[in-house]
Amino acid sequence: MIPSKQKQIQLVSRPVGMPKDDDFLYKEIEVPQPSKGEILVKTLYLSVDPYMRGRMSDAKSYVEPFALNEPLAGGVVGEVAQSQSEHFKKGDFIVGMLPWQEYSIASEKEIRSISPDPSLLSAHLSVLGLTGLTAYFGLLDIGQPKEGETVVVSGAAGAVGSIVGQIAKIKGARVVGIAGSEEKVHYLKDTLGFDEAINYKETNDMQAALKEACPNGIDVYFENVGGEIGDAAISLLNKHGRVPVCGAISSYNKTEMDLGPRVQSKLIKTSSLMKGFVVNDYNDRFKEGATQLGQWLSEGKLQYEETITEGIDNVTDAFLGLFEGKNLGKQLVKVAEPTK
Amino acid sequence: MIPSKQKQIQLVSRPVGMPKDDDFLYKEIEVPQPSKGEILVKTLYLSVDPYMRGRMSDAKSYVEPFALNEPLAGGVVGEVAQSQSEHFKKGDFIVGMLPWQEYSIASEKEIRSISPDPSLLSAHLSVLGLTGLTAYFGLLDIGQPKEGETVVVSGAAGAVGSIVGQIAKIKGARVVGIAGSEEKVHYLKDTLGFDEAINYKETNDMQAALKEACPNGIDVYFENVGGEIGDAAISLLNKHGRVPVCGAISSYNKTEMDLGPRVQSKLIKTSSLMKGFVVNDYNDRFKEGATQLGQWLSEGKLQYEETITEGIDNVTDAFLGLFEGKNLGKQLVKVAEPTK
Repeated sequence: MIPSKQKQIQLVSRPVGMPKDDDFLYKEIEVPQPSKGEILVKTLYLSVDPYMRGRMSDAKSYVEPFALNEPLAGGVVGEVAQSQSEHFKKGDFIVGMLPWQEYSIASEKEIRSISPDPSLLSAHLSVLGLTGLTAYFGLLDIGQPKEGETVVVSGAAGAVGSIVGQIAKIKGARVVGIAGSEEKVHYLKDTLGFDEAINYKETNDMQAALKEACPNGIDVYFENVGGEIGDAAISLLNKHGRVPVCGAISSYNKTEMDLGPRVQSKLIKTSSLMKGFVVNDYNDRFKEGATQLGQWLSEGKLQYEETITEGIDNVTDAFLGLFEGKNLGKQLVKVAEPTK
Repeated sequence: MIPSKQKQIQLVSRPVGMPKDDDFLYKEIEVPQPSKGEILVKTLYLSVDPYMRGRMSDAKSYVEPFALNEPLAGGVVGEVAQSQSEHFKKGDFIVGMLPWQEYSIASEKEIRSISPDPSLLSAHLSVLGLTGLTAYFGLLDIGQPKEGETVVVSGAAGAVGSIVGQIAKIKGARVVGIAGSEEKVHYLKDTLGFDEAINYKETNDMQAALKEACPNGIDVYFENVGGEIGDAAISLLNKHGRVPVCGAISSYNKTEMDLGPRVQSKLIKTSSLMKGFVVNDYNDRFKEGATQLGQWLSEGKLQYEETITEGIDNVTDAFLGLFEGKNLGKQLVKVAEPTK
């Protein structure tokens, strides 16, 4: 039964610093009706991601800012509730970029079908989705780890970082993770097989801790956090070091200027590279990445964790929790069960 | 006539901040005698370069630090004064990395012959030498300017920058130079054909000045100086910007931490690349670069300027002048005339 009313989450003011509850509005709206060629999607899982903070500001970036008094949007796994399209039928499972609400209208081009395997539904927003692809292309295309090299990843227990470290292990590198709790450190070493892991919250001197964990220096630093952790890792780059720059979560809610040591001299001394990227840079290679990730997953070479918050009423809490590192692996919100 | 005594310039203490006169010692020493297989080289031109400041400190870098109480060394164009080698004969002109003194012993491997054309002798330390190759590989391999793109180069009237801008023009880019005097600005625009040039010493807001000079943003920023100029240029990078990082002269004599805006967020938002390099990274492609530079030079497509200081007694003054931007084009010291 499709209800007539539903909840939608709007951005109603541009956050300054850490977003506050009243930057968001949970609004009751009508459930829309699909026109010809359209699909009504029932939201099962929503993805909340740190990059969304950037879109809440008005600054120019690689994607348009979210509009005020309009719904927020992101990765969604859903179920086709009604279809006016020949390409989708009721009960199909799909993934797409859709608004934060319980039921959405999608065009055929906005969504694609996924396997109905219930155990993998959410994985299309994590290891098999843009998160896994972000790790795959950032590490392999920019980082290019070689056997025996040292790869350091920050945000290592997060959605992207945990996959980055495991791919680096598959490629034969020595992998050191940086994360924010003892639980995460144990997860990285004991479950994911990282060689070393550092709890930055218990570390006064990150450079010294990294030096100890990386006796041969750092060949690849996969950047998810920026700030002083990034400074320390960059300072230890070896000759021909590579830094895929994926995220800088420590800076996303900063209101003052984000100042640190300039990197030019270090880059010259080591002939090192820093390269920012977003996963859409690799649009035309998504199939390659998804195929490889799926194969590693089926071979048991990749493990993934999901932190699943229940209920659409908790979407913004789940989002804000990202900035406190509350999640292990991918943070998702489960909005509804699949229809039996 | 080869004299029996000569002057040698030693490093006698590691400079803190800007080097001072008493960090150097001009010492009278014997002119050595070549043994079998060796060549006695009479120094005609010495190259002084900003990167040498790094080697005067004790810090780990891409080259060993200069030893204390030993001669400084760098690029030299010289004339064979005596030869105990079959491969070189008296009167040959050569280039090599040799000590800062009037006569040096070189092994066959340390030097290579150059054209005896007297008008091009010094060019083997500038446009046809490591300086030209630095510009060539940094711009073309890392910067990869495309027709119609905007290329900004700092230190634009210097040895490397002036060649970078001209190669970018050859490749069809719009070229904006940043330099430190009105004379240099006129040189860049009127003599070298840059599209725009900015005198940073007369500019309070470098970002605003660059925005005005680069209405379509910056696709390639060739970094020679670092500091606030680098900050401003990086802040204006377009999507898929490229920053060859060649030098950071503003920081070489700094004793405090070199702090500026962290670059991670900008690199992510624009999928931009920063890559440090030194010319030796391209050792195996020197012939390609030298051939192309020589061809452009002979076709009149490349112009070069040299600021030539006279006399070995003035080598350290010429070196220190680099940090005040006293040079236009390549700074050299003429130590002696070729023997008639």
